[in-house]
Amino acid sequence: MKSDKNVSNSVINRLPRYYRFLGTLLNKDVTRISSKELSQLMHVTASQIRQDLNCFGGFGQQGYGYNVELLHRELGSILGVNNMTPAIILGAGNLGKALINSIEFPRCGFQLVGIFEKNPAVIGQNYIGLTVQDIANLEKFCQTYHPKVAAICIPKDEAAALADTMVANGIVGFWNFSSYDFNFHHEGVKVVNVHLRDSLMTLSYMVTHMDEGNSKID
Amino acid sequence: MKSDKNVSNSVINRLPRYYRFLGTLLNKDVTRISSKELSQLMHVTASQIRQDLNCFGGFGQQGYGYNVELLHRELGSILGVNNMTPAIILGAGNLGKALINSIEFPRCGFQLVGIFEKNPAVIGQNYIGLTVQDIANLEKFCQTYHPKVAAICIPKDEAAALADTMVANGIVGFWNFSSYDFNFHHEGVKVVNVHLRDSLMTLSYMVTHMDEGNSKID
Repeated sequence: MKSDKNVSNSVINRLPRYYRFLGTLLNKDVTRISSKELSQLMHVTASQIRQDLNCFGGFGQQGYGYNVELLHRELGSILGVNNMTPAIILGAGNLGKALINSIEFPRCGFQLVGIFEKNPAVIGQNYIGLTVQDIANLEKFCQTYHPKVAAICIPKDEAAALADTMVANGIVGFWNFSSYDFNFHHEGVKVVNVHLRDSLMTLSYMVTHMDEGNSKID
Repeated sequence: MKSDKNVSNSVINRLPRYYRFLGTLLNKDVTRISSKELSQLMHVTASQIRQDLNCFGGFGQQGYGYNVELLHRELGSILGVNNMTPAIILGAGNLGKALINSIEFPRCGFQLVGIFEKNPAVIGQNYIGLTVQDIANLEKFCQTYHPKVAAICIPKDEAAALADTMVANGIVGFWNFSSYDFNFHHEGVKVVNVHLRDSLMTLSYMVTHMDEGNSKID
């Protein structure tokens, strides 16, 4: 089921979490779940779950709840997890390598087709079947293989220097670990900025306020 | 100003983001801002901002807005960013090294006091003034130096094997990149789970629905 309206960022942000919890339920052979049970599991209100899923047409049945397998599949389709959108990684330093080794791109909707790095000591190395290429080849690669998404694991100034080239050559989405503001400079691209510092600060709040009830941010 | 009630996870999650935007404004020498202007900048409603900040007693003045420097400082204090809570990193593989090199722990409320790894090739290496230690020394280290927080950059089964030891020796907070469920096994600890896959799936949604208005998740 496809959305035919603008879904808010907050809902979009929560979708992968629903998908993840439903996947866990599936693995435990749970076949159906009420919005109340799901809400207790996920620590959100049942009304929020209903509201969120209603953005895409509902899926629940009064008195039955949600069919776990069906909802998982539908959310996966909405998230595009089967699309195998061609993606590249810029930067094969520690962060880039951590992503290459720990993230299953195909399960998130992407096929990793290229890894780029400027450090000559890393160029030529092999990771998950891909040879790290000189970042100088990026433009030609884009024109030949048409990747649509780039994971940005290089510093801000290097990202800034390459942004025009990427956008001009068909990159429309950025998984951005740098602090370069792609949106500000390039209208129309889609960007998910990852702020690891924010999540560490959240933990700082929680250990500063040990007496409060919150035990987990998930 | 300290909170004297339970603040919801959603509000806690948004606090570092407010802090970050206010820091950017400060760097641009902006001295005051209305909740409406702040809301346009951050893509949340002005009423949400007022509601969130009211959890901690407000800070805004009718007709004046927010004093940027004051609010930044107060939110920093609420987040505990000056606490220098002693923290350790478990795992100096790619992810651990990426965090060590890219996250300024002291600006997030923590002082990094130890790095632990089981790989003999990495033990003894130096990062930011710390020598990577054998993870076998973890218990003794905790008893001597009393770290309170651990960044978990080791696989789930290794995290599971060490969790009891850490909790028994005073670790109360986990910045958790593994999929081990600390809360399920250890009541009372504070956990921030980082799900990088979720954010990549969010990008998958956005490039799957290019026609929708959302351009940035921040």
